[in-house]
Amino acid sequence: MNHRKTLKHAMEKLGKPPGSFGPDLDTETESAPRPAPRLALTRYDADRLERLEPATIGECAAAIDPGMVNWIIVTGIPDPATLEAVGQRFGIHALVLEDLGNTAQRTKIEDHDSHIFIVIRSLETDPASARLAVGQISLVFGDHWLISVGEQNGNLLHHVHDRLEHSRGRIRKLGADYLAYAVIDLLVDHYFTALHHIDDRLEKLTEHAIADPRPEMVPVIQGVKHDLLLARKAAWPVREVVSELQFGDSPLITANVTPFLRDLADHANQIMDLIEIYRELAGAAMETYLSSLSNRMNTIMQVLTVIATIFIPVTFIAGIYGMNFEWMPELKWRWGYPAVMTVMALLIAVMLWFFRRRKWF
Amino acid sequence: MNHRKTLKHAMEKLGKPPGSFGPDLDTETESAPRPAPRLALTRYDADRLERLEPATIGECAAAIDPGMVNWIIVTGIPDPATLEAVGQRFGIHALVLEDLGNTAQRTKIEDHDSHIFIVIRSLETDPASARLAVGQISLVFGDHWLISVGEQNGNLLHHVHDRLEHSRGRIRKLGADYLAYAVIDLLVDHYFTALHHIDDRLEKLTEHAIADPRPEMVPVIQGVKHDLLLARKAAWPVREVVSELQFGDSPLITANVTPFLRDLADHANQIMDLIEIYRELAGAAMETYLSSLSNRMNTIMQVLTVIATIFIPVTFIAGIYGMNFEWMPELKWRWGYPAVMTVMALLIAVMLWFFRRRKWF
Amino acid sequence: MNHRKTLKHAMEKLGKPPGSFGPDLDTETESAPRPAPRLALTRYDADRLERLEPATIGECAAAIDPGMVNWIIVTGIPDPATLEAVGQRFGIHALVLEDLGNTAQRTKIEDHDSHIFIVIRSLETDPASARLAVGQISLVFGDHWLISVGEQNGNLLHHVHDRLEHSRGRIRKLGADYLAYAVIDLLVDHYFTALHHIDDRLEKLTEHAIADPRPEMVPVIQGVKHDLLLARKAAWPVREVVSELQFGDSPLITANVTPFLRDLADHANQIMDLIEIYRELAGAAMETYLSSLSNRMNTIMQVLTVIATIFIPVTFIAGIYGMNFEWMPELKWRWGYPAVMTVMALLIAVMLWFFRRRKWF
Amino acid sequence: MNHRKTLKHAMEKLGKPPGSFGPDLDTETESAPRPAPRLALTRYDADRLERLEPATIGECAAAIDPGMVNWIIVTGIPDPATLEAVGQRFGIHALVLEDLGNTAQRTKIEDHDSHIFIVIRSLETDPASARLAVGQISLVFGDHWLISVGEQNGNLLHHVHDRLEHSRGRIRKLGADYLAYAVIDLLVDHYFTALHHIDDRLEKLTEHAIADPRPEMVPVIQGVKHDLLLARKAAWPVREVVSELQFGDSPLITANVTPFLRDLADHANQIMDLIEIYRELAGAAMETYLSSLSNRMNTIMQVLTVIATIFIPVTFIAGIYGMNFEWMPELKWRWGYPAVMTVMALLIAVMLWFFRRRKWF
Amino acid sequence: MNHRKTLKHAMEKLGKPPGSFGPDLDTETESAPRPAPRLALTRYDADRLERLEPATIGECAAAIDPGMVNWIIVTGIPDPATLEAVGQRFGIHALVLEDLGNTAQRTKIEDHDSHIFIVIRSLETDPASARLAVGQISLVFGDHWLISVGEQNGNLLHHVHDRLEHSRGRIRKLGADYLAYAVIDLLVDHYFTALHHIDDRLEKLTEHAIADPRPEMVPVIQGVKHDLLLARKAAWPVREVVSELQFGDSPLITANVTPFLRDLADHANQIMDLIEIYRELAGAAMETYLSSLSNRMNTIMQVLTVIATIFIPVTFIAGIYGMNFEWMPELKWRWGYPAVMTVMALLIAVMLWFFRRRKWF
Repeated sequence: MNHRKTLKHAMEKLGKPPGSFGPDLDTETESAPRPAPRLALTRYDADRLERLEPATIGECAAAIDPGMVNWIIVTGIPDPATLEAVGQRFGIHALVLEDLGNTAQRTKIEDHDSHIFIVIRSLETDPASARLAVGQISLVFGDHWLISVGEQNGNLLHHVHDRLEHSRGRIRKLGADYLAYAVIDLLVDHYFTALHHIDDRLEKLTEHAIADPRPEMVPVIQGVKHDLLLARKAAWPVREVVSELQFGDSPLITANVTPFLRDLADHANQIMDLIEIYRELAGAAMETYLSSLSNRMNTIMQVLTVIATIFIPVTFIAGIYGMNFEWMPELKWRWGYPAVMTVMALLIAVMLWFFRRRKWF
Repeated sequence: MNHRKTLKHAMEKLGKPPGSFGPDLDTETESAPRPAPRLALTRYDADRLERLEPATIGECAAAIDPGMVNWIIVTGIPDPATLEAVGQRFGIHALVLEDLGNTAQRTKIEDHDSHIFIVIRSLETDPASARLAVGQISLVFGDHWLISVGEQNGNLLHHVHDRLEHSRGRIRKLGADYLAYAVIDLLVDHYFTALHHIDDRLEKLTEHAIADPRPEMVPVIQGVKHDLLLARKAAWPVREVVSELQFGDSPLITANVTPFLRDLADHANQIMDLIEIYRELAGAAMETYLSSLSNRMNTIMQVLTVIATIFIPVTFIAGIYGMNFEWMPELKWRWGYPAVMTVMALLIAVMLWFFRRRKWF
Repeated sequence: MNHRKTLKHAMEKLGKPPGSFGPDLDTETESAPRPAPRLALTRYDADRLERLEPATIGECAAAIDPGMVNWIIVTGIPDPATLEAVGQRFGIHALVLEDLGNTAQRTKIEDHDSHIFIVIRSLETDPASARLAVGQISLVFGDHWLISVGEQNGNLLHHVHDRLEHSRGRIRKLGADYLAYAVIDLLVDHYFTALHHIDDRLEKLTEHAIADPRPEMVPVIQGVKHDLLLARKAAWPVREVVSELQFGDSPLITANVTPFLRDLADHANQIMDLIEIYRELAGAAMETYLSSLSNRMNTIMQVLTVIATIFIPVTFIAGIYGMNFEWMPELKWRWGYPAVMTVMALLIAVMLWFFRRRKWF
Repeated sequence: MNHRKTLKHAMEKLGKPPGSFGPDLDTETESAPRPAPRLALTRYDADRLERLEPATIGECAAAIDPGMVNWIIVTGIPDPATLEAVGQRFGIHALVLEDLGNTAQRTKIEDHDSHIFIVIRSLETDPASARLAVGQISLVFGDHWLISVGEQNGNLLHHVHDRLEHSRGRIRKLGADYLAYAVIDLLVDHYFTALHHIDDRLEKLTEHAIADPRPEMVPVIQGVKHDLLLARKAAWPVREVVSELQFGDSPLITANVTPFLRDLADHANQIMDLIEIYRELAGAAMETYLSSLSNRMNTIMQVLTVIATIFIPVTFIAGIYGMNFEWMPELKWRWGYPAVMTVMALLIAVMLWFFRRRKWF
Repeated sequence: MNHRKTLKHAMEKLGKPPGSFGPDLDTETESAPRPAPRLALTRYDADRLERLEPATIGECAAAIDPGMVNWIIVTGIPDPATLEAVGQRFGIHALVLEDLGNTAQRTKIEDHDSHIFIVIRSLETDPASARLAVGQISLVFGDHWLISVGEQNGNLLHHVHDRLEHSRGRIRKLGADYLAYAVIDLLVDHYFTALHHIDDRLEKLTEHAIADPRPEMVPVIQGVKHDLLLARKAAWPVREVVSELQFGDSPLITANVTPFLRDLADHANQIMDLIEIYRELAGAAMETYLSSLSNRMNTIMQVLTVIATIFIPVTFIAGIYGMNFEWMPELKWRWGYPAVMTVMALLIAVMLWFFRRRKWF
């Protein structure tokens, strides 16, 4: 779960100086070696698009062409050395570098004049558990370059890459700011997919809650609620990010991109609306479950009551004539047995009529 | 349900460039061909009113008379080609055109200087399910023209059209801004009708909840709550739209229209008040249902307890004298049987008195 | 109920032009003729006070004396013709006139420079149902005149009229603004009376909930909650009205009246405090009801359990010795019967001791 | 209860002109004569402190020494004549005088330039009912004088008086503004005592709720919640009062007192924090009560189920062999009886094992 | 519990003059002598670091080197004499000194121009009870000095001290403002550890709630909720403290430290997010508990109903043939007994089939 990741990261760092991205600024020994991050560089302008896969950050930095838009895609968590090299090449602030190596950030935006740093959460559905998997993409972009860092970078951003390759339109003509917008827009559009899966889960849950309420449903409904909380925590600050981009007066954001940001804010608002609706539906699913359960209890009690109430009195009558008193004249009557049987049958009939009138069965 | 529509639209668009209204800007192939939208043009001034039904947008554009107010009514979702033609004729922004082709917008207003774009939700009651059906009307209006787009356009707006035809008063003398106001006012007034249907449903639900609480009521009450949430989401931003029109300093809004906007804001506030009251009543209906159910459970348990408590002890006494011990002197007594019967009758009487005092039946 | 009135009014108006006070501006035919409103005119200054009952609005307008304060009291809903005549005489805005003919307004204030329009709700207790009856008084006042319109006008405002007649103090010396203040103050003071009745109902409900919880109480408690919601909706915007009067810079409000407005704001705040307290008490009454019910259920189950648990085992023992096996040596023993009886008595005693220790009875 | 007092006061005043402190400005007849308030005057500077007990307000006014700080302590509710005399002597506004005679004010502050009027609620614990008793102290202070009015004035303020008498420090050197601060600080410090009593009640309630949940606890817990609501209504506006004193730019508040006001604001915030914590604990006490009750119900049902489930089947077996069929070969078998007894014992053992495994006893 | 400490402190002070740190400014007799606080002085610059343990505050003050950063660590609650001496040496405001001697402060910041006073709560987990233990560290810092006061000072701050000793980097080069930042950052990072323990408790609770719901769990879950409330009260105002440091324009905060404060604000926000998530999980644990309990109740009732419903009717049949009527022809039939047994077996089979179809077992 996502909150465990935040906790874990925070506790690893405990007592280390802030702004350090490793155990210390000098010693770069790491307890468990992380898998090396994969690098890719896509540089393009309206006419050309080239994709390189440099082995090291040095190669990558050398390939930057200031006349094109340069998109550096880092898949995985970059190691301190890489981050330091990147920081020097593009003049990125030390605390931004630290955050780039941290997989448990909140959605946020920081304007460092020469570059803007943005963290956006990605929401995907884990196919195994059907639960929401929260990841993140960190973006830093300056005048002619954008660096995207994320563990799921490759999977998530291939749509944007496809558009770059196949389009000769707006995305190729505008700069790194539009590219950053396109990446954020893609991530936010994926929120709709995540909500679609939640919609499916809720629909099934509600059906089950009516048909066959089982206690195993409670943690499942709570899981949906928890996922919606995570989704809200991801989507809520997107509006702030967009508003900062729109109104933050950074020279990095050109006038061509501004109207698209309004569109993005609209999507974030729609997602917030949907999340509110799904929270209500999740609440309704729980209510339905509890109501089904309570109705079931009622039915059980009715059955017990009907059976017990019908048979206890007649059993008592049978008990009376099972007594062994010597002087019990009824026992000797010729019509005693049929009479008692008739009385008991009448009693049962009265009871049944009473319950039927009360609609107990 | 409305939120499904939002999801579906958002997911269809996934990965496409924003501002595109079709799969791509160039290729206009669409998987499932939408039914062609119907066009109508009503142009009027204080003296004349003409209604045309142009077959194509080209015909329609040719018929625009700058000396009159031109109302283009598009029923259905316009296809990209139509939108592009409209966009060129009236100078409408690309993102507005995209939104015109989208049936799942939030209520909103956008001022693009030469034209104002407004989306208002329509609330109607689906006769089959008695559930709220949420639609939308998109309005774009400029100096002497207004375009209204919506799937239900024709059904909803005929009231406004009737007023145009039969009145020679304010609506014919004022411009496109008043026409836009009249359309919004009509839609908002329909919210009252929708709430009236909800009022009916709630009243019946509450009666049933008292008389005969059934588990099938739970999803029905939840449906009412859900509809009220949708109504609130439709009505809430109307106030923002009105306030933007009133105070937004657009030259398109003339001083003649401003006082009517205050009236509209008042209606939106009344609707919010009613929605709050109905939410409370829906909560009360659920509470009544649960309370009826719990009361019913109590009654069932009382019946069971009264019957069991009366007959179990006397059945035990009968059981004693059903034992086959050889030495049981009571069995031989002449008055044994009547004595036991009397004891049992007394016991039953005591029990009945006890329960009566406790008001258990 | 008040919200029904709002709905009804809104739906009657559906599709009519706003600012119209009748079915249309020209045709004044009305489906069901409303009873003609009664008119009264009270004009006064520090020395004189005269009360007139003009038959028509023309007579009334003719009797206005600009050197005195003129209070026109309209009891009932004025018809369109009257409203139009009034509007012309005092220069009142068309939308204000429409609102004067509408019995389902929200509390509000509108400053139209030459006159101020205020709607205040009246809260009274319907003696038959003990439920809150929400009415309204509309006030329009200008330099030397005040018009009060309301269905209950006469009943509610006689206190103010009495003060006018019997006092030679402040109310006679100050102008129409103080008169308007006095009317609003009276209406707000009546809110305390309404809350007093709610206090009584809540106290009785809580007592009943403890002594004898019945399902009929649920809708009664919900009725109190609903009334408190209506009271809050009436009282909440009074503060806004007062603040607009205090700080709205209207030349109609003189410096002599300002300190009294602060007092009025204080009362509105006290009412909001009381409403919050009563909402809490209504919640507590429901909680008490549910808790009493649940406690009763517990008692019932305890009785059933005690009786069943005591007698079921001993009945079983009796059943054993009721079996007809030929070889059952105990049956032939001289002390068999007393022994079994003793065992059963011991068993019952143990059970009773067990339940007593558990405080089950 | 406090809210009854507010209601009563408001309803007595109904229809009277505001700013009047008695039935009317002229006629001073009062239905039930209030006990005459006791007057005390303490005047002091750094060197001298004198305590006088003037019989009338005239004597008191004559004893005012403009060179010292004059503290007039009015215990009880002053009658209109006294108030009028005081108002004339110190130039106090008519509405302030009215409020001084009103025992049901909200906490508030009013700056009348030449004097500041403050109402602060006192919270004490009624020893008989252990419930919170809400009172109030009204303060008016000007350049060299302070009047404190309250029904409990004497009891509450003796701490401040003691400090005045025994100290030669700050309180004696600074002016009436510091004295006002000292009184407010004392009242606010008493809130902690009131919360301490609530803490005790809550602790005992929670213990009882676990050990022996009884329905009588519900109103007691609700009483604690109600008291906390009253405490919040008393403490919340203290922050506003302090902030108005700190930042209100009144020349009556000297720079020496400002830092102490920050301290006071801190205390008010601590009290709000504590109240929030106690509200949570009161909610937890109710939850504990309901959970204990529900657990008890479960236990009862388990006992019933275990007993019934064990004995009903074996009773049935005994019933079979109690039948009187002539042809029932088992009855004649030598080992029939022991066999049936064994079967029944086994059945009981199986049942017990089943319940034990399910942890039902 | 923390709130008890606040209460106790507040009540001890009742009636004492504010700004006094002891029973009075002159008399320094204290009822129960507090253990003497331990003093330590660490002075450092980029090159040197010295740790002294002065016995008295006089020694300590003498050892201050204005050319270095001087960190005075007071472990325990300083007595009034010490505070007064410290106040004189560093020119600290009297109310700050009082607060330094108070162990129950709210998180806050006060800028006194020549020095800044900050209170931050520490959150630790009490190993015995697994409950949160709330402490506090008070910081006062000026140009070249920082005083930290706290009962747990030594245990909590040794991390910062270690960094000072072993690093030659930023912490040694920057001034007292960075040291203050490092202390606050450490305390806030410890909040993550506290939340980690709460995470553990919640996970175990949820597991138990599913497997074996017991009433003892209710106070435990409530304890977690209470701890989360305390954590929120500790973390919430940290953002205010940081924002005051960032934007408060104090010359004591240098530009080198500002970016680190943004990082700190980020951590505080993450903690608030985590607390919200854990509050939701605590609510879910309670819901799970109640649902498990209710499910268990259902199961019990099902068992009772199945057993009773199966055996009560057949017991009645056995009862019939246990009657002693002389004329009961069935009793004499050869196949009477087997026939009745078959009927009873069939009845039981029907019942079982009925319950199986309803999924009751």
